[in-house]
Amino acid sequence: MTTISILGSGIMATALSWPLTDNGHEVRLVGTHLDRDIIDSIKATGVHPNLDLQVPEGVRAYQLEEAEEAFEGAEIAMSGVNSFGVRWAGEQLASLLKPGMMVLAVTKGMEADESGNLRILPEVLASEVPEDLRERVTWSAITGPAIAGEVAVRHDTCVVFAGLQADVLEKLAQTFRTDYYHVWTSTDFVGAEVCAAMKNCYAFGGGFMEGLLDKEGKSEAKYRRYNYAAALFGQATRELGQWMQLLGGDPETPTGLPGVGDMFVTTMGGRNVKAGRFAGAGVPFSEVQNERMKGVTLEGVAAIRVVGGALLRLTERGVVGPEDFPLMRHLYAVVAEDEPLNMPWETFFGGERKAKARKG
Amino acid sequence: MTTISILGSGIMATALSWPLTDNGHEVRLVGTHLDRDIIDSIKATGVHPNLDLQVPEGVRAYQLEEAEEAFEGAEIAMSGVNSFGVRWAGEQLASLLKPGMMVLAVTKGMEADESGNLRILPEVLASEVPEDLRERVTWSAITGPAIAGEVAVRHDTCVVFAGLQADVLEKLAQTFRTDYYHVWTSTDFVGAEVCAAMKNCYAFGGGFMEGLLDKEGKSEAKYRRYNYAAALFGQATRELGQWMQLLGGDPETPTGLPGVGDMFVTTMGGRNVKAGRFAGAGVPFSEVQNERMKGVTLEGVAAIRVVGGALLRLTERGVVGPEDFPLMRHLYAVVAEDEPLNMPWETFFGGERKAKARKG
Repeated sequence: MTTISILGSGIMATALSWPLTDNGHEVRLVGTHLDRDIIDSIKATGVHPNLDLQVPEGVRAYQLEEAEEAFEGAEIAMSGVNSFGVRWAGEQLASLLKPGMMVLAVTKGMEADESGNLRILPEVLASEVPEDLRERVTWSAITGPAIAGEVAVRHDTCVVFAGLQADVLEKLAQTFRTDYYHVWTSTDFVGAEVCAAMKNCYAFGGGFMEGLLDKEGKSEAKYRRYNYAAALFGQATRELGQWMQLLGGDPETPTGLPGVGDMFVTTMGGRNVKAGRFAGAGVPFSEVQNERMKGVTLEGVAAIRVVGGALLRLTERGVVGPEDFPLMRHLYAVVAEDEPLNMPWETFFGGERKAKARKG
Repeated sequence: MTTISILGSGIMATALSWPLTDNGHEVRLVGTHLDRDIIDSIKATGVHPNLDLQVPEGVRAYQLEEAEEAFEGAEIAMSGVNSFGVRWAGEQLASLLKPGMMVLAVTKGMEADESGNLRILPEVLASEVPEDLRERVTWSAITGPAIAGEVAVRHDTCVVFAGLQADVLEKLAQTFRTDYYHVWTSTDFVGAEVCAAMKNCYAFGGGFMEGLLDKEGKSEAKYRRYNYAAALFGQATRELGQWMQLLGGDPETPTGLPGVGDMFVTTMGGRNVKAGRFAGAGVPFSEVQNERMKGVTLEGVAAIRVVGGALLRLTERGVVGPEDFPLMRHLYAVVAEDEPLNMPWETFFGGERKAKARKG
């Protein structure tokens, strides 16, 4: 039996307690200051209000002030906060981690510095932990297509645990694997995390299709705009490959679970896609953010701001060409510069009207 | 102005008359013996009954016995029949083609010989034309995500014209390109066509998700099975890459419009996905084919029979390993051997429980 302590009791962090308790492990779920009501509910009735499910027997819930007790003796320490809380979570872990613990993060996103240099979030998380301790624990992350509620109702889910140490990844995988939660491992930590972050950006475009139909008064029309969505999916996959080249990931990672797999599931729905639908319908994005979806957490949109802003810096510095990443640039123009949606098709796939046919 | 004569008046062939006539070209649409009612309808009222749309002004419809007149003076000769009619179409073209014509096919699929050797359908089409004539015309094909009705209502669509001669492809592309029908070109003829055929097979699995929910009485449940569908999409993309290695396509072709783009759109619906849903719900496939969907043309299912059968031959011959293409093998077992759906997850992505983490 392994003890797993999780900081953050959002739906993804909590959903993982199903495979873990099915395997007989002890799960300790610690709420952040934003999760107080969730922890109260689990303590009182066992129900996670956002998942709308009774958490498994044996999951123990803790308020933040009980975190030290919750992390005592844990072999696996998880960060289950979203991308906005990653630095805060790192600060907390600085005092909760003990040498030898295996850290596993579920947060997806990127951070950029003023020069446009991009970092994966597990690295940002680790950077908040003093160097001496940081090097005496291990850092890994979960990537791949996993809607939390589906894991919690034990529907088949295939994920990739990514990190630098193959032996650690295999230990973690063995702890989580069940007959419905299928775990592969990959030492392409950067590639898997970059895909995880970027697909959140590209999935925003998954809403454009319905939005365009709304705008044209064709919301119920027989002929939809799947061709449009499919073309975006293809260009997004191409750009995932270019991110690998730029940031040092394995070129095969975008074609697997952390890439097209996760992008597929994220494109199917959720808050980001809903925001994309408003953009597709012609609502200026400032109005989407400040009125239509005011107060709603939009991680994908936040990631577009980070990545698209970094692209501008990287282009100024000549690190990427002005014709690279045309889809990401247009997503940035829509969300950060209030530009109307006007897909630059002719710039996709290396350019439509280039004189010569390209192989592939 | 260019004259384009099309053999076959199904929905895809007919839909292409919108971009062509928008560009001022002359379109002559020739029905096969199965299309008699379609041609009668277009001649009488202008309406294509299956598209449920009025075809553009200037499209001229011909019955099969008027084919010779229809192909007289054409610069572009299209084959618009489905995969079942490809040899028949080749026989017709043998007497309709004239030296110098550019042939463009929309048919997607593969043919296998008794040893399991696979051939792309444009090659099969050409093989029915006597060698002397065959070499005095050019052969190209349209690949990429295009639902016919969406093209016909002028919704943005991005496709790839694939063939061996870059200059011919560019001429064809210029003839078809409009501000909604976007055309790229590729000289990876084999790769693009193999992707086009294989994605029809894999899209059958797109129905399993809903079928499993039907079986479990969860058709209306809050938590779906998108994780399942996303994992299949990832494994299918991996297998597309392996087909490129085996059959000689460019490794980048699966990551673009002919690969993930077309697989995305095909997974979203249609008859094949409906058949897959029955399979997911636990209906033996013989019952799906002979009762539930009796008489319905299922090109994807037919392609699974061809490709899966070829895989068995290729494995016997040692050309592919028994662990290669596990998803295609299971699709074959379901449709051709009446096996129950039981996804072999542990065999996907190179094997779940291999001792060492693999890069990527």
